[in-house]
Amino acid sequence: MITTSFFLFAFTVLVNGFACKDAKLVQANGFFFSGLHLMGNTSNAVGSQATPVTVAQLPGLNTPGILMARIDFAPWGINPPHTHPRATEILTVIEGSIQVGFVTSNPENRLINKVLEKGDVFVFPEGLVHFQRNIGYGNAIAIAIVGLSSQNPDVITVANAIFGAKPDIPNDLLAKAFQADVKVVDQIQSKF
Amino acid sequence: MITTSFFLFAFTVLVNGFACKDAKLVQANGFFFSGLHLMGNTSNAVGSQATPVTVAQLPGLNTPGILMARIDFAPWGINPPHTHPRATEILTVIEGSIQVGFVTSNPENRLINKVLEKGDVFVFPEGLVHFQRNIGYGNAIAIAIVGLSSQNPDVITVANAIFGAKPDIPNDLLAKAFQADVKVVDQIQSKF
Amino acid sequence: MITTSFFLFAFTVLVNGFACKDAKLVQANGFFFSGLHLMGNTSNAVGSQATPVTVAQLPGLNTPGILMARIDFAPWGINPPHTHPRATEILTVIEGSIQVGFVTSNPENRLINKVLEKGDVFVFPEGLVHFQRNIGYGNAIAIAIVGLSSQNPDVITVANAIFGAKPDIPNDLLAKAFQADVKVVDQIQSKF
Amino acid sequence: MITTSFFLFAFTVLVNGFACKDAKLVQANGFFFSGLHLMGNTSNAVGSQATPVTVAQLPGLNTPGILMARIDFAPWGINPPHTHPRATEILTVIEGSIQVGFVTSNPENRLINKVLEKGDVFVFPEGLVHFQRNIGYGNAIAIAIVGLSSQNPDVITVANAIFGAKPDIPNDLLAKAFQADVKVVDQIQSKF
Amino acid sequence: MITTSFFLFAFTVLVNGFACKDAKLVQANGFFFSGLHLMGNTSNAVGSQATPVTVAQLPGLNTPGILMARIDFAPWGINPPHTHPRATEILTVIEGSIQVGFVTSNPENRLINKVLEKGDVFVFPEGLVHFQRNIGYGNAIAIAIVGLSSQNPDVITVANAIFGAKPDIPNDLLAKAFQADVKVVDQIQSKF
Amino acid sequence: MITTSFFLFAFTVLVNGFACKDAKLVQANGFFFSGLHLMGNTSNAVGSQATPVTVAQLPGLNTPGILMARIDFAPWGINPPHTHPRATEILTVIEGSIQVGFVTSNPENRLINKVLEKGDVFVFPEGLVHFQRNIGYGNAIAIAIVGLSSQNPDVITVANAIFGAKPDIPNDLLAKAFQADVKVVDQIQSKF
Repeated sequence: MITTSFFLFAFTVLVNGFACKDAKLVQANGFFFSGLHLMGNTSNAVGSQATPVTVAQLPGLNTPGILMARIDFAPWGINPPHTHPRATEILTVIEGSIQVGFVTSNPENRLINKVLEKGDVFVFPEGLVHFQRNIGYGNAIAIAIVGLSSQNPDVITVANAIFGAKPDIPNDLLAKAFQADVKVVDQIQSKF
Repeated sequence: MITTSFFLFAFTVLVNGFACKDAKLVQANGFFFSGLHLMGNTSNAVGSQATPVTVAQLPGLNTPGILMARIDFAPWGINPPHTHPRATEILTVIEGSIQVGFVTSNPENRLINKVLEKGDVFVFPEGLVHFQRNIGYGNAIAIAIVGLSSQNPDVITVANAIFGAKPDIPNDLLAKAFQADVKVVDQIQSKF
Repeated sequence: MITTSFFLFAFTVLVNGFACKDAKLVQANGFFFSGLHLMGNTSNAVGSQATPVTVAQLPGLNTPGILMARIDFAPWGINPPHTHPRATEILTVIEGSIQVGFVTSNPENRLINKVLEKGDVFVFPEGLVHFQRNIGYGNAIAIAIVGLSSQNPDVITVANAIFGAKPDIPNDLLAKAFQADVKVVDQIQSKF
Repeated sequence: MITTSFFLFAFTVLVNGFACKDAKLVQANGFFFSGLHLMGNTSNAVGSQATPVTVAQLPGLNTPGILMARIDFAPWGINPPHTHPRATEILTVIEGSIQVGFVTSNPENRLINKVLEKGDVFVFPEGLVHFQRNIGYGNAIAIAIVGLSSQNPDVITVANAIFGAKPDIPNDLLAKAFQADVKVVDQIQSKF
Repeated sequence: MITTSFFLFAFTVLVNGFACKDAKLVQANGFFFSGLHLMGNTSNAVGSQATPVTVAQLPGLNTPGILMARIDFAPWGINPPHTHPRATEILTVIEGSIQVGFVTSNPENRLINKVLEKGDVFVFPEGLVHFQRNIGYGNAIAIAIVGLSSQNPDVITVANAIFGAKPDIPNDLLAKAFQADVKVVDQIQSKF
Repeated sequence: MITTSFFLFAFTVLVNGFACKDAKLVQANGFFFSGLHLMGNTSNAVGSQATPVTVAQLPGLNTPGILMARIDFAPWGINPPHTHPRATEILTVIEGSIQVGFVTSNPENRLINKVLEKGDVFVFPEGLVHFQRNIGYGNAIAIAIVGLSSQNPDVITVANAIFGAKPDIPNDLLAKAFQADVKVVDQIQSKF
């Protein structure tokens, strides 16, 4: 199971000396996070785990936030198709071989994909559906940086949004949208 | 008389009359579109058709654009699940009964849905997957307004991005993501 | 299953389902407005009435809001010259014949105008003084979409701001500005 | 006559060393303007003159521009009601006594006004109609700073936009808007 | 030592009529500051004093703020090297002769400098280290306008940040950075 | 000396399907960078080297860019005090022990510092002077992510800007600013 809990503290006052009377109280720990060297638990349905960094963010109204996460992949683990509506993502491979891809928007819907090795970096453009999967024989590790154009990057996992919505999106509508039988839709919906 | 002449160099587009040395050439037709009263052709797989308005956009760097479209629905026509990564949408029903819905992001994935009648208005929050379908006995018409937080709202139709990507997203990855058989994935991919 | 819990503190408004700990409480009615098919009461001095849609606005810091209104015009009713300092406007004619116009800024002050029929759409650039009037024999209806570059589009009706300010703008100053007699200014001020 | 010619050079490259290969060519004169101590010629219908500063502006996409101007007023000279759709203005009195005011937007239309003396500073909120006039016995001088939320502040002089539009805004529409006789409108239009 | 205390009032509601139910309470004094004609006390180590204007700021989320200050210089007084991370500055000389300069960023580090006389204006690009000094025989006065790209311009005086940090930045690190002896660093640190 | 050459490709068109007719030409390599696993050459005066990632950037007007770099430190190597006027930085330690610090702005100038080990992450707030140094016995490696609020983060190395400006900042001014002898200033300037 991928558990991604971002704790964004949107301070209204911060570290510069004169707009903020609490400058004296600023502590190094407020800018610090420990543990990105620890492996995440990938024993789940998709074989991957994101460990987000929960550092405090600067709150300036026009200041873009930055989030980062370590992603661990079991052999053949995947990070299923998802989007960040308001964020560009940069992925760096620390260990292993990871296939990555994103799909351009209408009407092209082209799959842009690439196999990444250690030291490779890839950018997923803002808002587009993208995925990763481990295609090596061992574990793989990546660092994902997500830069926000707004205060909250958001994550929408496509399969969950479409087939796991609560209550269900009407099955006949999905059947039409995916040009599949209603019973295929029912079957997939039952898994989520 | 006050004569205020602004000479802005390096503007590349110029529909507004005031920031541009071609102000004398501005014509009303540059701000005008005709034909939103005409019905779109809904004889297609999803039974709906969007007729976008192609008015010139204001080019100011920080000026949000606005797009609008007439959407016609055959009886039981649908506008399949899709997202606008950088745009909020307002839908107004002009004629008929239309069920609308959107799905909240992770981890809730709640379906928020409503049946709209003539004169009803509904907002789809930025970046979320949403859909519409005609649930009346006759045709339905809606006006959709899409307000951009960037210059281009973009449309990502989920089914096309996932199952219609060219080249295909690997079928085993999709099978894992949707918790379905590879052959079900193959079958759906073959339709797109 | 992917569990992504964003805890955003310090958001003051929360209509979207995903950036807010009250995501479970989101209701469809928060995104819904009913009544745009109802005619506004045009029995007033200018023979027109705007019925604004009061849907909840998305609160993202950089997210442009969108407002819409139905505008009803009695025969020869007008929507007097006004500006939205921080908003572009798109007007769609639903019924009738409406003359529309805007005036470019200094030093040109050109009037850009056009007669619109049913299905026609017109854009009024951000910040410019604009007006509409019914030039048909019956009632006219338009839908106005106002897209904000900031959170609040604002409306400034020129006549009210100039001659209806409370307290009055000094009449001799207005006389100079409009190159008219002080008593003409007095007379107009007395109407507001 | 007030002739306000702003020459905004919107450089695409600038002074920082590594995003711009022309950094070596940067010269101090590109950031320099001389002449703000010189009096403007106020022999015109409104008895005032704005002398704008034409320094080069930093071109960053999100960087707000700043403009400034010296405004000279003959005794009882006025700067007639006008708006800057996308700019806040700060006025500092260098010499003399100047009455300033702005009118809030609909529905209040309150006149906020104040008499300023040497060393006084006043802020005109973005987009609102405002004016100044010399109420002393001698000349008056002010420095106006206009901060842009977009690249171009724009100026709309109300009287010119309403009664001096070319071609004319229909006189019967203006008569209705200002609740005045058509012949009063004709008379004012004839002056512009 | 220059003590620059900006008092930024970040109102959340303002002067436009319908987004703010307190429009009736708006008072002219909220937009007003008095005292820019008064000389600051320059009896300090650097021989200069900044007197900031504390006018209320417009709070729109995307509205750039504007700050201004009068800066007095004793003969040969300096305003030591400093930066405003998020603000462009325009300086106008009211009296005297002031040498100004800024240094471009890596890798050029070019000094762009100029001697300004009464009526001269100079722009310091956003974020660059800059300074001023009186090079005349009498006092000098300048008006500095600081335009913010975010809500708070911030001031970082280089000497104070580097040698006056509390606790000290390690002296051996500074020795390496400035390619100087550790005891030179110690000596400078002891002054702050 | 650290030579930080960022190559920013500011594409004007991109990957979404309908705002760009070149969508068909998008290639995976445009989003790809290889080589972050390679050690930089730290044989220089400060004993550190930044290897920037030169991935293509998304060009949306309001889209914040993201830059990243690998920073190698020889034992006791330092990354001298510097600022990014328009960027927040996140540093992750991949190997070794690195002391990091930043100094708050006026009037506090507090040093906030911390020793980081492998897997630790630290945030440097936008615009503040900061530094790093290796305090372990072997080499150290960090990944720095710099998130831009504008299109170009910029780097200003304090020592270079102050003592290495070309031409020199006047030595007597620096002597005053740093409260040091002119000959100390001369000596430091001679090294740059």
